[in-house]
Amino acid sequence: MKLLLPDTVSARLHLPEGWESVVVDGAAEIPREHWDADALVAWGPSPRHLQSAAQNLRQVQLVQSLSSGVEAIVAAGFRPEAVIASGAGLHNRTVTEHTLALLLALVRRLPAALEHQRRHDWSSELGGIHELHPADRVTTLLDARVLIWGFGSIAQTLAPVLAALGATVTGVATHPGERAGFRVIDVGHLHDELPTTDVLISILPATAATRGVVGSNVFDALPARGLFVNVGRGDVVDQPALITALRTGAISGAALDVTTPEPLPAADPLWEAPHLIITPHAAGGRPVGAELLIDRNLRALGGDGTIGNRIDRAAS
Amino acid sequence: MKLLLPDTVSARLHLPEGWESVVVDGAAEIPREHWDADALVAWGPSPRHLQSAAQNLRQVQLVQSLSSGVEAIVAAGFRPEAVIASGAGLHNRTVTEHTLALLLALVRRLPAALEHQRRHDWSSELGGIHELHPADRVTTLLDARVLIWGFGSIAQTLAPVLAALGATVTGVATHPGERAGFRVIDVGHLHDELPTTDVLISILPATAATRGVVGSNVFDALPARGLFVNVGRGDVVDQPALITALRTGAISGAALDVTTPEPLPAADPLWEAPHLIITPHAAGGRPVGAELLIDRNLRALGGDGTIGNRIDRAAS
Repeated sequence: MKLLLPDTVSARLHLPEGWESVVVDGAAEIPREHWDADALVAWGPSPRHLQSAAQNLRQVQLVQSLSSGVEAIVAAGFRPEAVIASGAGLHNRTVTEHTLALLLALVRRLPAALEHQRRHDWSSELGGIHELHPADRVTTLLDARVLIWGFGSIAQTLAPVLAALGATVTGVATHPGERAGFRVIDVGHLHDELPTTDVLISILPATAATRGVVGSNVFDALPARGLFVNVGRGDVVDQPALITALRTGAISGAALDVTTPEPLPAADPLWEAPHLIITPHAAGGRPVGAELLIDRNLRALGGDGTIGNRIDRAAS
Repeated sequence: MKLLLPDTVSARLHLPEGWESVVVDGAAEIPREHWDADALVAWGPSPRHLQSAAQNLRQVQLVQSLSSGVEAIVAAGFRPEAVIASGAGLHNRTVTEHTLALLLALVRRLPAALEHQRRHDWSSELGGIHELHPADRVTTLLDARVLIWGFGSIAQTLAPVLAALGATVTGVATHPGERAGFRVIDVGHLHDELPTTDVLISILPATAATRGVVGSNVFDALPARGLFVNVGRGDVVDQPALITALRTGAISGAALDVTTPEPLPAADPLWEAPHLIITPHAAGGRPVGAELLIDRNLRALGGDGTIGNRIDRAAS
């Protein structure tokens, strides 16, 4: 049995018996001698690589993505018998860490500190004795009310860390209730929550339903001290509305790891929005635990267990 | 019974029966009509305020600092009958948060991201697909080895958060063993640990024994990927040695919330050291739980319980 592994994957695999792996160029077409592959790992494939795989791998049984989002793979047209599995969960810890880095940089005003540093200026405004909870600014996560929109596995990894730092975390998701010990509300109740929210974090996927949902009505409903962080997909945010919210002080700061489009063109006005931190889709990009998932799913193909992260292709 | 409270304290106090509080200017001398005070809270007192208090409060029973360090209060010359109590513990959570902000900014390369942002440049080097653990750089706290030098109450608050993010935390302190579930080594074994340390955090107090202890022998023993964060006292670091270590690549980055002197003069070469983040003593400055400590210690004066955070003046 043959597994094609793109050269973008640095994981050391211990394959189940009967499997061999072949490293292929994840940006190029699949070489003809590997059209007989039984499984394919996809990690940052070029459109050309993906199209070539979908067209030519006539006996592929498993397409294992290491990304959480598999829209492009589902759309590529693999044979109906092929199981598609996502990399959901592999990015929980890295995205949690980056989200925390962005949020704490906003709360602890690191961009302003770096600006003062450039001017050799020890700012007494940024340091020294301060009020714990000034009315106009979120200066700590202690007692902060954090709303996470999109309460999947990344959010459920992030939420306990925020809680450990003293925040009260609430989730927003399609199905309300309690998840991982946190209160989850449905989108219909979002606007009840926003006026008392200190920090709104978006970890929403890109779907037809989420496009542009974080817009002026959301920013205007947040308090002026409110902060916004997006580590989900850029599509979700109405970027002109965000720029306006930051310029007018409707919210006090934001951080984006994802934008529309990516890469963000040099002429985009987003670069010059005040009180904004932009990182170039740096939160994840490093799957953790891919070895275990691949091993599990290859074994499942052989009848040992079930496929993890299996995508319902009909519903996608 | 009269408690003098400086105007720098925003806490709402519920005093034990029999006590009244008077707000005084924490930068000025104690007004003569309050020389009969029984207790004094000190929070960022000016030298003049402190000297006036020590000289004139002839019946003061308790000097309650809200700072962790009380060197200046002990040295001020209060009457021997006065109990001095520190604010140890009141800054655990805020300093933990700031340390995390600085460390994650280094690990997630936020200063470089902000520099690219200023140039409207979506850096493919900072984002996209990456190795989880490149040899020459600490890019995540996951699996990182963190050494915290000074393993008191702040470190014991910080360590579980770092552990939750995937780091292995070891403490360095006068007394080795296990504390709060973490391995603690003594300073004699520091150099065994440094070559495999990804992140060194100093939370050391300023004493005669700690002056300049983080110097070239420490930086040279760390791996080139190593990061250093100081949130203790500036005195502890040999600053010229740190500048050299950052310039030569002996370590890959550092963050300082404390410097020598403070404020750091505009001409100091530290401002221009590469791969360095400086914040102006911004980690703490906002005591959390001061109300409870003051209440407890005023009650203890009346014979109800024991004084918390009592300083042994003879040993100081």
